[in-house]
Amino acid sequence: MTTSFPMNAGDDPYSYSKNSQLQKEVLDSAKEMVRDAIIRKLDIKIMLSSSNTFRITELGCSIGPNTFSAMQHVVEALKEKYQNNIPEFQIFFNDHITNDFNTLFRSLPIDRSYYAFGVPGSFHGRLFPSRSIHFAHCSTSIHWLSKIPKEMLDEKSPSWNKGLIHYIGASNIEVMNAYVAQFEKDMEVFFNARAEEIVPGGMMLLISPQLSERLLKFFGSSLMDLVNEGKLDESLVNSFNVPVYFPSIEDMTKVVEKNDCFSIERIELTHPKSKLVDEADAKTLMINLRAVLEGLFINHFGREIAKEAFTRTILKSDEISAWMKINYKKACQLFIALKRK
Amino acid sequence: MTTSFPMNAGDDPYSYSKNSQLQKEVLDSAKEMVRDAIIRKLDIKIMLSSSNTFRITELGCSIGPNTFSAMQHVVEALKEKYQNNIPEFQIFFNDHITNDFNTLFRSLPIDRSYYAFGVPGSFHGRLFPSRSIHFAHCSTSIHWLSKIPKEMLDEKSPSWNKGLIHYIGASNIEVMNAYVAQFEKDMEVFFNARAEEIVPGGMMLLISPQLSERLLKFFGSSLMDLVNEGKLDESLVNSFNVPVYFPSIEDMTKVVEKNDCFSIERIELTHPKSKLVDEADAKTLMINLRAVLEGLFINHFGREIAKEAFTRTILKSDEISAWMKINYKKACQLFIALKRK
Repeated sequence: MTTSFPMNAGDDPYSYSKNSQLQKEVLDSAKEMVRDAIIRKLDIKIMLSSSNTFRITELGCSIGPNTFSAMQHVVEALKEKYQNNIPEFQIFFNDHITNDFNTLFRSLPIDRSYYAFGVPGSFHGRLFPSRSIHFAHCSTSIHWLSKIPKEMLDEKSPSWNKGLIHYIGASNIEVMNAYVAQFEKDMEVFFNARAEEIVPGGMMLLISPQLSERLLKFFGSSLMDLVNEGKLDESLVNSFNVPVYFPSIEDMTKVVEKNDCFSIERIELTHPKSKLVDEADAKTLMINLRAVLEGLFINHFGREIAKEAFTRTILKSDEISAWMKINYKKACQLFIALKRK
Repeated sequence: MTTSFPMNAGDDPYSYSKNSQLQKEVLDSAKEMVRDAIIRKLDIKIMLSSSNTFRITELGCSIGPNTFSAMQHVVEALKEKYQNNIPEFQIFFNDHITNDFNTLFRSLPIDRSYYAFGVPGSFHGRLFPSRSIHFAHCSTSIHWLSKIPKEMLDEKSPSWNKGLIHYIGASNIEVMNAYVAQFEKDMEVFFNARAEEIVPGGMMLLISPQLSERLLKFFGSSLMDLVNEGKLDESLVNSFNVPVYFPSIEDMTKVVEKNDCFSIERIELTHPKSKLVDEADAKTLMINLRAVLEGLFINHFGREIAKEAFTRTILKSDEISAWMKINYKKACQLFIALKRK
């Protein structure tokens, strides 16, 4: 049983659908690579031998405009590839059962040229019948772990993460090891499931940005400010860890090779040009992260503390901007194109 | 563009998921016929030549437990039919975009033996790629029209339905004709879409109860009570018509034959044994209808009048019970098993 960490639902000012500019930048900067993978690498003849339907899934679709623009881009590239013999497209929008599918469905583009479906469930497990998917796309999602490693919740464990909420900034190597071990376990399940579901010759593209991981420390520092002011029990911070791991090229190569059902067609670290970073718009970025993380914070700390921590972090905009200007040149984004053997 | 009339969402006391006993009775009384159609009429060899996935859709699934028990029953009958060579099952739960898919997904049975998907959109139109569905099931839904015929909204039209909210009770034959014409138009679109989507040899079962149509007059009379007390403008009642038509054997035969892509394997009027009717439980029945109709009433009359009309109708329980005891012996339920030619 995996745990779910849904983005903020609906369409109010702190909703994910109104605050996903960061994820849009990730998608925009990967656009050309997505098109290139489809045009150059996809072997369409093999896959459509038994029907005229091309089945696509967006894994971890969440809500809001990004998932639709990503899928529109994929469909356009496929149409270009198929030229005069365009198949019917069936798109499966997947996310956790707790995702706000009502908002997703109500905002589906009216002029779409595909049949749209919702698929409730964790991608850390099977979602589709065998050999039923031709193309899988997963952007800004693969870094979500299925859960926090159990040992990190044990005060006596060497991976007890005192005073921090993530491996970023942790001097304790056991913390990092616990995250990596969970990532590897999750990816084993993920790739086993996708290997069953994707037809031979079918593709999967994974896009994983490292944009936000380093910013988590600012949320952690706001929580510790509350601890220092006596407004929050430190043990609550110590037992809280954000369940995201941002894989490197080596990490991803290792899990793909262990699974052995996919060939790596392209794997690359890119340096996306971020409008949010260029303009050092720390406030937009932090509200963006709030829409992503709020449910998780509320679940652990309660609504009041979560709200206070987010408000305080946004007040640190100047500090965050300064830090971003120095550090974001190093920012990188992982793109992986895989083909089912 | 079709209009949607969703059942009451969520799971509060007046929600559809808590008030769908009537629809359960319909399903229960059709169970044996569903099983029989699958066991005796379905030719499974033809359909699965190109993959090992059996694709089922529930059209107009709404929310609540009925849709899951109906699909469970279908899957069990299919497993019995397939015996030792059971395929993977993929079930597409379809309803209007405004349906509460969040509640639907969150109540999916954990121990289900199928992959579950949501399909947002009206069944008065295309929902699936060509030849992608093996089995379609539609219970207590086919009687919903895509809209009220336009001419019924015109005070000068011969089909202006003064003082009533449905064709039941109307002495004006033009009212009935307008409903029938809309039903035929809708079924033309419905069957054209299903003919494209269902594989040759695939089946579609339609279950249409006439249980509730005659009860609509009690809601109408409550509205007219409000008119007579000066609390509601009569023109609002005159321009309101419930968009449901309950087809006869002749109606259904006519639309199926006009489409000409399906053979009628069985068409039958049955006399379901209703616990609600036997026990003359008018109150349960009327709350049940409230969960179905409330959105429609609120949309036209506003929340206050709608609430008042429902409250008043439930106060007529004794009168309704007496009427039911006399009339329900005639109650009938239409069952149709079709096969794609």
